[in-house]
Amino acid sequence: MASVNVGERDLVRLLERCLGRGGRRPPELEVGIGDDAAVFRLGAARLVWSVDASVEGVHFDRRWVSSRDVGWRSLEAAASDLAAMGARPLGALASLVLPAWVTPRELGELARGQAAAARSLGCPLVGGNLSRGTELGVTTSVLGVCRRPLCRSGARPGDELWLVGEVGLARAGWELLRRGMATSGRHERRCVTAWRRPRALIRRGLELGRVAHAAIDLSDGLGGDARQLAEASRVRVIVERGRLERALSPAVRGVALALGLEACELALGGGEDYALLAAGRRRPAWARVIGRVERGRGALLEGSDGSREELGPGFDHFG
Amino acid sequence: MASVNVGERDLVRLLERCLGRGGRRPPELEVGIGDDAAVFRLGAARLVWSVDASVEGVHFDRRWVSSRDVGWRSLEAAASDLAAMGARPLGALASLVLPAWVTPRELGELARGQAAAARSLGCPLVGGNLSRGTELGVTTSVLGVCRRPLCRSGARPGDELWLVGEVGLARAGWELLRRGMATSGRHERRCVTAWRRPRALIRRGLELGRVAHAAIDLSDGLGGDARQLAEASRVRVIVERGRLERALSPAVRGVALALGLEACELALGGGEDYALLAAGRRRPAWARVIGRVERGRGALLEGSDGSREELGPGFDHFG
Repeated sequence: MASVNVGERDLVRLLERCLGRGGRRPPELEVGIGDDAAVFRLGAARLVWSVDASVEGVHFDRRWVSSRDVGWRSLEAAASDLAAMGARPLGALASLVLPAWVTPRELGELARGQAAAARSLGCPLVGGNLSRGTELGVTTSVLGVCRRPLCRSGARPGDELWLVGEVGLARAGWELLRRGMATSGRHERRCVTAWRRPRALIRRGLELGRVAHAAIDLSDGLGGDARQLAEASRVRVIVERGRLERALSPAVRGVALALGLEACELALGGGEDYALLAAGRRRPAWARVIGRVERGRGALLEGSDGSREELGPGFDHFG
Repeated sequence: MASVNVGERDLVRLLERCLGRGGRRPPELEVGIGDDAAVFRLGAARLVWSVDASVEGVHFDRRWVSSRDVGWRSLEAAASDLAAMGARPLGALASLVLPAWVTPRELGELARGQAAAARSLGCPLVGGNLSRGTELGVTTSVLGVCRRPLCRSGARPGDELWLVGEVGLARAGWELLRRGMATSGRHERRCVTAWRRPRALIRRGLELGRVAHAAIDLSDGLGGDARQLAEASRVRVIVERGRLERALSPAVRGVALALGLEACELALGGGEDYALLAAGRRRPAWARVIGRVERGRGALLEGSDGSREELGPGFDHFG
């Protein structure tokens, strides 16, 4: 299914089994359950379609985000699946579950957050649905279009492993908030903003669509997502620790120190950065090499001494 | 927004105001917020896209529906927006919020209900999303395709008002369950099944797409939905009481008697039938005339003595 977490996979397999029984398959369907998004072919165009949910108490805590942040991040998180597939956004539908505490003012704030993200992404909200409920939930479905979708399954042995965008920042920001630590420093502010106001890398995704063989967006942590890419492509993905460390920003390194954590762990285990991990050979200047693709299976972290350890699974709400 | 209830309109207007500020509008967008679904133009085809949520305690009570029913009705309810627009389904995405009580067995049952509906609709589940949460929620986004979408806004003075499918059954079934009354009789079983296992009228919608001027699906009750059709088309919709009564099934009339309610009120005020209300002139044999379209505004119920009373608004979770 689109954008599920690694550890949910038993449930997803169960769903696949129960859902997959017979039934007509529309001739337009090219990619179903199992990638960042479903893909339909319509004439020369490919439609890319995905859904993402943001639920209070699971994906966010209202002590640390405003309603405007909730609106912003729900749309950016959903649009990130379009970025990973190399698609241009057509629009979004938002289904809101609203508890009684959500006043019209708060709802307006949430919508303004969505609208700001929609403008920055070129992905307008074109409809939706409102429902009562006990916990605030924003389920966002996004539709995009491309000529050739960039799937998780295209990585080949011999490819470089590329990181596009930054990793570890969002998790570092979330840890600062969760631990009630000071967030006024330059590095701290940067990390907290990365968590509150992530950005889907739509333009980079479109550019990757022309040169990369495969891509996935980093929603559940680099370790787990690298493993998903490896499984879908039936290859082995090697993340080189030294290269990953050099790719991390001073903000992640600084905040990791304050948190007493390794910067690399924030990148590998932390999610919600919405950077892109891609595999290919004709590397654009803005993509950083952090590893390589080999024959084999699984995702491994390789130390500078040649030691290797298994990566993933990523963060799991069901774990 | 697609498929919102009448009384939610203050909130929807607020959202429209907050969301509508500037931003690029993709050239493909033809219909945005305000109809049963959003519409994009892609080559010669029109893409029709909608979302619907089914939340425990709001849209269903687990005392009266099985997990399999929840799966079935969530997909049929969402697909009904495609029927109203005269679109052929391409597929559905389901985003599930799962409380801890949902065992793998219950999840399997829910998925089997979705799969059964998907087969009957020709609308496969092509992806989705899982999240933890405190109340069971199924948010279903559906995508369809057509040559010419049937909008709410096309009704013209002089059109007939057509009912396609049956109304009042689902509300009658729900009332029986809610009041703990016997449901073993033939009429009672029929009403309860209509509520538990509604059917989106996809084939009828496709046929209406060739002859009708406008359509809406009856999710919130005939009264409120007639009013929505009138508002979108900027006309007056007259429902003729005598004709509506003659269009009601013996099951609705029988159960209304047992409930001590008027059959007509079950049809006008009760939702979740997913019948279609359409306006046009070249009436197919399976569409029943229940009224007409005039110059003016609003939706009125006209008695056989010529008396008129205002219809709507429909059921409102926020009221």
